[in-house]
Amino acid sequence: MKRKIRVIQFGVGPIGASIARLVREKEGVDIVAAIDTDPSKAGRDLGEISGAAGASWGVLISSDASATLKRPADVVIHSTSSYLPKVMNQLLSCISAGCCVVSTCEELAYPFRKYPELSQQLDSAARDQGVAIVGTGVNPGFVMDKLVLTLSAACQRVEFASASRVVDASKRRLPLQKKIGAGMTPEEFRREVEAGVIKHHGLPESVAMVADGLGLSLDQISETIEPVIAERLVKTDFLEVSPGQVAGVHQLARGTSAGHDLIRMELKMYVGASDPADTVELRGTPSLSLTVPGGTHGDLATAAVVVNSIPSILAAPAGLLTSRDLPLSFFPGVAAKR
Amino acid sequence: MKRKIRVIQFGVGPIGASIARLVREKEGVDIVAAIDTDPSKAGRDLGEISGAAGASWGVLISSDASATLKRPADVVIHSTSSYLPKVMNQLLSCISAGCCVVSTCEELAYPFRKYPELSQQLDSAARDQGVAIVGTGVNPGFVMDKLVLTLSAACQRVEFASASRVVDASKRRLPLQKKIGAGMTPEEFRREVEAGVIKHHGLPESVAMVADGLGLSLDQISETIEPVIAERLVKTDFLEVSPGQVAGVHQLARGTSAGHDLIRMELKMYVGASDPADTVELRGTPSLSLTVPGGTHGDLATAAVVVNSIPSILAAPAGLLTSRDLPLSFFPGVAAKR
Repeated sequence: MKRKIRVIQFGVGPIGASIARLVREKEGVDIVAAIDTDPSKAGRDLGEISGAAGASWGVLISSDASATLKRPADVVIHSTSSYLPKVMNQLLSCISAGCCVVSTCEELAYPFRKYPELSQQLDSAARDQGVAIVGTGVNPGFVMDKLVLTLSAACQRVEFASASRVVDASKRRLPLQKKIGAGMTPEEFRREVEAGVIKHHGLPESVAMVADGLGLSLDQISETIEPVIAERLVKTDFLEVSPGQVAGVHQLARGTSAGHDLIRMELKMYVGASDPADTVELRGTPSLSLTVPGGTHGDLATAAVVVNSIPSILAAPAGLLTSRDLPLSFFPGVAAKR
Repeated sequence: MKRKIRVIQFGVGPIGASIARLVREKEGVDIVAAIDTDPSKAGRDLGEISGAAGASWGVLISSDASATLKRPADVVIHSTSSYLPKVMNQLLSCISAGCCVVSTCEELAYPFRKYPELSQQLDSAARDQGVAIVGTGVNPGFVMDKLVLTLSAACQRVEFASASRVVDASKRRLPLQKKIGAGMTPEEFRREVEAGVIKHHGLPESVAMVADGLGLSLDQISETIEPVIAERLVKTDFLEVSPGQVAGVHQLARGTSAGHDLIRMELKMYVGASDPADTVELRGTPSLSLTVPGGTHGDLATAAVVVNSIPSILAAPAGLLTSRDLPLSFFPGVAAKR
């Protein structure tokens, strides 16, 4: 790489901001523009909105996506919504602009099962433009799929796969603590689940990616969302949870064949979780498991996975890809050496 | 993939045989020919020599590599030696035949530092022929490099990396137990190290791959080979080791910059090891570690990694690649689904 990689940041919410701060650290990458539809951010400096120390970066946030995407760039980092249908037009406009796309849209991580037509549309558009697009992050995109499939490379046969992620939400942002229902009554929690408010997106996507990667044929993918009930008083910097109240969320996605679980992906995210860890288990020849004690930090790791995907997506063949297709690794930020 | 992937097995020692048995299980792959220079194997059936249950596969082992490589094939699985200079002609003849190559040659796993000219020669030849070549296996190729780099994708910054592999050799093949010096006196062990007989190949290759992947600049890679001394009597199916005798080998490869370790790769392979495990540690933001309890089984996992690399090497761009470049995953043996 002779010249710097030019990045457009599309979406400057908390995740987009943490991605922008990390991109900014990479010597070989320039953020050339930023887009956010929030009128309160338009015209303001990306550095300021990203909460970066040292303020102004000289990159103003624009609410006009089409105009901004006319700037020459190599990659758009896209972080606006979890729902694929909602972001289709945004993604297609990035592709039309001739940019590769790395998106945190959870439903894009493995969209083939839930949205076959949209997947086809994105794949065709990307191939026509000679660019690659991927949805990724820590989960989906890493712990429950990429890491599982990477470990499976040491197996001769695999008949079952699971991943579990236990996250202690005590130290996380207040919006996250609220998003998992901490402090609610079980009834409030269930209403919020019903309303689609409490839900971590992407578990079924990981189930589908792993099933296809392992060649395990599923007749169904199902998902449950239950409260984790606090057994003792838990205090965080932001809130208190009494025994009997909701401490957080327990989501389980299962991929089944003839009533048997072949894949299980489990997320427990609650305040006061005592042994946070990411765990992967493969049953086969040989059976293998791995544990990441403490687990991967959701916000830090999502930004990391997204930014570390930049060189792979630029080197990848055109089309709609998934984290399974990319040789993911740390991106030192300067041209790769040998 | 409409037609089956055609494989030529080049080298039918214990590892080549275990690879051949695994390839044979994959529906979408045919072993079309086999090569071994050992005259006692020439003309005999690959199934028989591979120790497969059910004997004959109808594939005769030939000692004539050039003649055999004239057969149309997609991939050569190469497993003849640990030393790159020794296998250069074999690899070049595979490439000239228009085949992709997956080799267990440890020095090929990351040859750029030790053999820049040979690397260049292989890369040019492979590009000329439009094929890809990789050296891989469980170690080097997976535990101490691919797994480390995959985990690093969840890090924003990395300043130190290590991997440790503790293997209990008690249950392994007798040749392996002998190869690690089990039952020797410390003096015998040191003579065998001196003579180059006791040595697991590939640790410096993993150090170099990880350093380059993480963008950590090293001034030196060094390696030590020490005996693990038995503290109690250890009996295996094949031999006995008394206290004070050698139980196995402890190898440590270090990548240093200005006298500081930036990378440490450690292998302890001995009879009676009580807590076998593979462990990876990254220090950075965030610091992350992972453990594979029990560790990956050397023979099973090497065959697995090699066979699982087949679809990636066929899809990869032409040239000399490393496991770092390939999106490694389980290969179900049939055409990839979405």
